[in-house]
Amino acid sequence: MLGLWLENQKLELRQSLVEPLPKTGEALIRVCLAGICSTDLELLKGYYPYSGIPGHEFVGEVVNAPSETGWQGKRVVGEINIACGQCEMCRGGLDRHCEHRRTLGIHDWNGAFASFLVLPLANLHEVPGGISDQAAVFTEPLAAACEILQQVAISQEKTVLVIGAGRLGHLVAQVLQTTGCRLEVVARYPHQRRILTSRHIHTLSKASLGSKKYDIVIEATGSPSGLLLARQSIKPRGTIILKSTYKGEIQFNFSRLVVDEISLIGSRCGSFEPALELLARAQVDPVCLIEETYSLDQGLEAFSHAGRSGALKVLIQPG
Amino acid sequence: MLGLWLENQKLELRQSLVEPLPKTGEALIRVCLAGICSTDLELLKGYYPYSGIPGHEFVGEVVNAPSETGWQGKRVVGEINIACGQCEMCRGGLDRHCEHRRTLGIHDWNGAFASFLVLPLANLHEVPGGISDQAAVFTEPLAAACEILQQVAISQEKTVLVIGAGRLGHLVAQVLQTTGCRLEVVARYPHQRRILTSRHIHTLSKASLGSKKYDIVIEATGSPSGLLLARQSIKPRGTIILKSTYKGEIQFNFSRLVVDEISLIGSRCGSFEPALELLARAQVDPVCLIEETYSLDQGLEAFSHAGRSGALKVLIQPG
Repeated sequence: MLGLWLENQKLELRQSLVEPLPKTGEALIRVCLAGICSTDLELLKGYYPYSGIPGHEFVGEVVNAPSETGWQGKRVVGEINIACGQCEMCRGGLDRHCEHRRTLGIHDWNGAFASFLVLPLANLHEVPGGISDQAAVFTEPLAAACEILQQVAISQEKTVLVIGAGRLGHLVAQVLQTTGCRLEVVARYPHQRRILTSRHIHTLSKASLGSKKYDIVIEATGSPSGLLLARQSIKPRGTIILKSTYKGEIQFNFSRLVVDEISLIGSRCGSFEPALELLARAQVDPVCLIEETYSLDQGLEAFSHAGRSGALKVLIQPG
Repeated sequence: MLGLWLENQKLELRQSLVEPLPKTGEALIRVCLAGICSTDLELLKGYYPYSGIPGHEFVGEVVNAPSETGWQGKRVVGEINIACGQCEMCRGGLDRHCEHRRTLGIHDWNGAFASFLVLPLANLHEVPGGISDQAAVFTEPLAAACEILQQVAISQEKTVLVIGAGRLGHLVAQVLQTTGCRLEVVARYPHQRRILTSRHIHTLSKASLGSKKYDIVIEATGSPSGLLLARQSIKPRGTIILKSTYKGEIQFNFSRLVVDEISLIGSRCGSFEPALELLARAQVDPVCLIEETYSLDQGLEAFSHAGRSGALKVLIQPG
């Protein structure tokens, strides 16, 4: 089958990759649409030593699953962590933190930038009919944005700052907007500000932030300067959510966290249900983030586009 | 009056300091007993540019307060933050985080290493009769330890690691022991381990920690290596409480926090009520931490003792 292959930080288009074979409890899925995420770009930079097909944001169709399971022919999205089901984390219901997990397109499990992929049936969620493929392909990053609402109580009177209006920061902003909180977003690029403004989300530049302090700050840039800005912008007793990973180590003054009793909460994947619910009710609209859709044989061009400064969502359509 | 005076990181014994005069709403307090804390030692090292009488852990007797207030003659301890009562933090009930606060013996308010001190009546708590001066002088650091229970739910099934068994770490351990959680304490010195063991608290050395992971880790060393150990010892989705400040900036890998969805919570002062309650019920016994009590005119020797590696509590008795 056709697919992108990553090895030694080099991405190649390969014509004759072996089509994956589902084992018991797994489904073969034809990929309809897949999204390029910052993690994919970081894998190329060697953030994690992955060899295989990248891609973990997708919507597809089940083309091979035991008929008694009822999955055959269903349009699906899939949770990306493949858990062992037996370790302490799995037994405690935290299978996204499974000690032996493999991760679709990221660690030891071939991903979505190919004609087909395989996932355990337990990872699949059927996509309701009202959700387009273009919206459904955002389920995974939208679930990551929804995870914030599981970690911190955000009510209407809270002042909330999102730092970063890229692919993930924008989705975070849309999700937080549904809470009715007093939301502002630091956006670097004019096109990012335009899209947020069209959705009635208040934006500002880093320079215009001044000394204003917020109850809750979401760091979604993955840069040390974003983290510093988060610390400068948080009220005493406030909560900073870290939504992006950082390359290497960062110099940080932890004493301010102690004196001001700040909470710093790491936030990664989320469960798919709330994300699919937001999409089904059209409470969020991620489609406005799509900049371009490439065919799979233009996959390298798609990655090049996604890597441009300020680029929003670039999709790959294998079909 | 007699007292210790700190200026330009130099501590002196002064014979004729001006006795403080209480303003409206304040009380004059004769200091019965005062404790030396790590923050006092750090003020000497220039951690914060304070000039004045240090000391913020004390028990004393009200010798001058308006008679209608009922405070005259009472044995008291006092909260250390003097709040403005008007800023956003004060209005929100977070007067310990007042934007304009002064702090007893730390910032712009003379402290307890003297014959007398002054505090607002609002800061005072009467010490119940059953609590000795030797126990009551620990109310402030004990309140700081109790603050942890306000910030994170610690139930019996939780595994909890306290890193550091010095003055504060030991009190944290005693407070956590009251929850019935599965508690272990990393203690560096044999005498620290001995005291904890005598209270049936399980101790271990850093070397024997291995790769065991805990639900909750309390960092009470104030050293970068303690912070690193906390990160290495925490389970995914766990909570690290930072109970000490750190000198300067620290190199830290924030990506692990994100991937493992760790919470890092700064923790400083606490309210005095729960601490006084624990003392009144004899659920904790801080007196075992007292290494020596010096008279005020031996105050410099007391500081020298408190500054020794592994030293526990050193008291100063002005009377």
